[in-house]
Amino acid sequence: MKQYRILIDCKDEKGLVYKISSIFFRHDLNILSNNEFVDDKQNRFFMRSVVDGSVDDSVLKEELAHALPEGASVQIVAPGRKNIVLMATKESHALGDILIRYEAGELDANILAVISNYDTLKPLVEKFDIPYHTVSHNGLERVEHEKKVLELLAGFNNLDYVVLAKYMRILTPGFVSAYEDRIINIHHSFLPAFIGANPYKQAYERGVKIIGATAHFVNNDLDEGPIIAQDVKHVDHAYGWKDMQRLGRDIEKIVLSRALKLALEDRIFVYGNKTVIF
Amino acid sequence: MKQYRILIDCKDEKGLVYKISSIFFRHDLNILSNNEFVDDKQNRFFMRSVVDGSVDDSVLKEELAHALPEGASVQIVAPGRKNIVLMATKESHALGDILIRYEAGELDANILAVISNYDTLKPLVEKFDIPYHTVSHNGLERVEHEKKVLELLAGFNNLDYVVLAKYMRILTPGFVSAYEDRIINIHHSFLPAFIGANPYKQAYERGVKIIGATAHFVNNDLDEGPIIAQDVKHVDHAYGWKDMQRLGRDIEKIVLSRALKLALEDRIFVYGNKTVIF
Amino acid sequence: MKQYRILIDCKDEKGLVYKISSIFFRHDLNILSNNEFVDDKQNRFFMRSVVDGSVDDSVLKEELAHALPEGASVQIVAPGRKNIVLMATKESHALGDILIRYEAGELDANILAVISNYDTLKPLVEKFDIPYHTVSHNGLERVEHEKKVLELLAGFNNLDYVVLAKYMRILTPGFVSAYEDRIINIHHSFLPAFIGANPYKQAYERGVKIIGATAHFVNNDLDEGPIIAQDVKHVDHAYGWKDMQRLGRDIEKIVLSRALKLALEDRIFVYGNKTVIF
Amino acid sequence: MKQYRILIDCKDEKGLVYKISSIFFRHDLNILSNNEFVDDKQNRFFMRSVVDGSVDDSVLKEELAHALPEGASVQIVAPGRKNIVLMATKESHALGDILIRYEAGELDANILAVISNYDTLKPLVEKFDIPYHTVSHNGLERVEHEKKVLELLAGFNNLDYVVLAKYMRILTPGFVSAYEDRIINIHHSFLPAFIGANPYKQAYERGVKIIGATAHFVNNDLDEGPIIAQDVKHVDHAYGWKDMQRLGRDIEKIVLSRALKLALEDRIFVYGNKTVIF
Repeated sequence: MKQYRILIDCKDEKGLVYKISSIFFRHDLNILSNNEFVDDKQNRFFMRSVVDGSVDDSVLKEELAHALPEGASVQIVAPGRKNIVLMATKESHALGDILIRYEAGELDANILAVISNYDTLKPLVEKFDIPYHTVSHNGLERVEHEKKVLELLAGFNNLDYVVLAKYMRILTPGFVSAYEDRIINIHHSFLPAFIGANPYKQAYERGVKIIGATAHFVNNDLDEGPIIAQDVKHVDHAYGWKDMQRLGRDIEKIVLSRALKLALEDRIFVYGNKTVIF
Repeated sequence: MKQYRILIDCKDEKGLVYKISSIFFRHDLNILSNNEFVDDKQNRFFMRSVVDGSVDDSVLKEELAHALPEGASVQIVAPGRKNIVLMATKESHALGDILIRYEAGELDANILAVISNYDTLKPLVEKFDIPYHTVSHNGLERVEHEKKVLELLAGFNNLDYVVLAKYMRILTPGFVSAYEDRIINIHHSFLPAFIGANPYKQAYERGVKIIGATAHFVNNDLDEGPIIAQDVKHVDHAYGWKDMQRLGRDIEKIVLSRALKLALEDRIFVYGNKTVIF
Repeated sequence: MKQYRILIDCKDEKGLVYKISSIFFRHDLNILSNNEFVDDKQNRFFMRSVVDGSVDDSVLKEELAHALPEGASVQIVAPGRKNIVLMATKESHALGDILIRYEAGELDANILAVISNYDTLKPLVEKFDIPYHTVSHNGLERVEHEKKVLELLAGFNNLDYVVLAKYMRILTPGFVSAYEDRIINIHHSFLPAFIGANPYKQAYERGVKIIGATAHFVNNDLDEGPIIAQDVKHVDHAYGWKDMQRLGRDIEKIVLSRALKLALEDRIFVYGNKTVIF
Repeated sequence: MKQYRILIDCKDEKGLVYKISSIFFRHDLNILSNNEFVDDKQNRFFMRSVVDGSVDDSVLKEELAHALPEGASVQIVAPGRKNIVLMATKESHALGDILIRYEAGELDANILAVISNYDTLKPLVEKFDIPYHTVSHNGLERVEHEKKVLELLAGFNNLDYVVLAKYMRILTPGFVSAYEDRIINIHHSFLPAFIGANPYKQAYERGVKIIGATAHFVNNDLDEGPIIAQDVKHVDHAYGWKDMQRLGRDIEKIVLSRALKLALEDRIFVYGNKTVIF
């Protein structure tokens, strides 16, 4: 008996649940949980099932693909540790939050390495026996620097996600396309407010009464990728921008860790610049 | 072509989704939305489907009942206005919130009447051309008073829900059992904190930093019924208990209206002292 | 014995609290509550005191002005009902929320009239015996239409605030300057996200996981005025933009009513495009 | 030039702000921030001023005490690192959150040691070069065990706060009285709901839609001490109690760290079972 996470994303049409569940039934699979969503506007069907039983993955996948509309995406994932690399710059709160969870065995992941453009966080990371790679951007063109990082990343087998835990450099399209829908970033504002640099300063100057943070997949447009999770806190006039930043860090780290957890549990579908999350 | 809301609640077993969806498929019903939940601990399966098509309700119900484990509950509901009666005492915020929504056509409901133990709210209610019945409890035993209210309620055909919009009297088991899982109350605390009288005063004296409200079905144990919705707001030392009450009213009315909306859309399953809400 | 709200806004310098409180002391005024804030960046001091006692307003004001740095703003306000005019278009939720509070005696205000560019809300408003003025914009240039509205407003003596309870027209600088820092608007997004038309549609298309509303004073730049209050709710992929709108209305009305309450209690200082709120 | 935090707590009477600010003025102290609160019910005045200037602490204290009503409490604190000891049992999230902040230099504190009744967290704590003391309760009466812990604590000079970062043992009155208003605990529910053991299980069984956490000072009555900070998150029927616990940990750690920060900044007044927080 094994557990399988089955993720289906296809054009909507009548009878999909019946067709899918009849295949599960024929293979004597027991549905532990089932989530479905139909996007009416885009006529698109999403389903995530967790089943247990005993079946040949490739047979099941083929049968599903055969029964579903053309172009359907079918993923069958065995629960288990995914491989991730963390990237950070100088701030430790988001990275540290992940490290503490990792140490507690709370994350279903192997942290293969931390990559940074500074060595500031090296002492912290090495406490946890995780390899730390400093790739300084000093004196390098953006693309040259990214090339070095990409070479490092390429050295990791079966890398599932790159997690930007306050990595403060903008990625070029070349970098992003190498890990499409697999780079998770935390942005320090409730997007789409305060795109770009120093959002807390922007928020302070705008006089907002709420600050927030957004975890999202990175795509080619800065801060425009599909949103995974957001949260906010109330502030008032007594908050200077450094106070907002301090409070904001608490939001950032919780939101990033929540997004990472959703990714590790295969709960996120990306379509266009949106997500469906079960 | 018609729309149907199908609510199923039964013992969990393998193949339920398959069995149900194959019946839908055979009757050429299109699933518009589908929600399922399995309570592992209690081995119980819940499903709410919205489908459209054309089918004889009683045939569909019988087929489903036949296919499902013994004791299954199957409800097939046509979307449409439900009949409700509101009960209140003297405060107008929760009642008023419902009236404004009603006037705007936002509620899928007919408000048959408002019943109160005072005539305080009569001028407000009559603005909206809704019958107002004062049933004073003056000089009456609790059960005598309730008998009069029950007689009034009995006069309404097809009454779906009784909504206690700050009705400040405790109901006896006799009253409650006449409308099991059909009386929705708003309690002015985040239950189970501050059960009983004057929760804001209790909250003030306890020095809490959060106050809240809870909408729940009423059962025989005071403030112990299945919770439908809850929300909270932050407070600080500068809030006296009347300030808490004032702020709390905003939570109360929103939470009650949300619970009412969930009920009107047939989104709530009650089991034991809990709810499943899709 | 009377109560006074004293609002002081001036350049910061050493000894301000001493100077102010010594004047209060000399007039035998008892401080019931006292709030102060210094904006370091702008070297500016704000203070709101509620005192009781018996003093000649103009004497007190003069003494304070004399003791404070040049250019100080000193307001002495007697608690009491302020005069407001509401403006709306077709939606009733924000307007209705204010009407219900008004009817309950919860607002320290006289609602002099409701002005709308449609007569949709007339039946609702007249239930509450409040004059309703339809000023259709049909066939009128923006400025011509505003001129008519301004003439109406000019007819009200001692008008304190104009409250835009979902008035869906953009105001010109001419209109705004006539009621500087006295027009309160509710914008249906957590500004500065989704400035402009149909923010819920924008939010839906961006795929946000949080929606919100913002009450602010109106200035010449659309949706750029000083923010008074904001709040948000979580949403997910299952929310279409109409669902967001429906949920958003609950945020809008509560946030607008909260902002109005703050204004009626003289708790808001405006400076630049920011507010200090005690 | 030095900074001073001045905390005053006394019977309310007319002229307090004047008397206090005139003393500040005489010593040429500049008020950087000032917060006041009067509890009407208890006729009690609270004030926290941050001033800079140059003054002899004991002279200032004496002058203030002399000017204020009898029994006034006056504290003059120089900003700077306080000494704290953390206590924990087996869970690392709350402790880890504090350690990461400590490492980042975010806490104005020296962590003198971590004390636990298990050695589970020893490897984590020692990464941060903080002494770890295991005081097993195995085979010991509660009071005997506490005696050992108290002896350890007594060995630290100038200990300011004991922070219970998920220390899962109930303290006896003897222990508590040794550190009155100086033991900060995190309780894993929004008190006063779910007092006692396993609150997440209680919450799950009650079917709540909100879970929370509460940081409070410990006094003699279990979970009845003055509340410092609370926060909550929404849950639904799909959360088993372990899911609630997992989500709850994120609330717990943020709330405890916030409470600790408030304590380190001398922002908390305790009176009766309440707090005033500036």
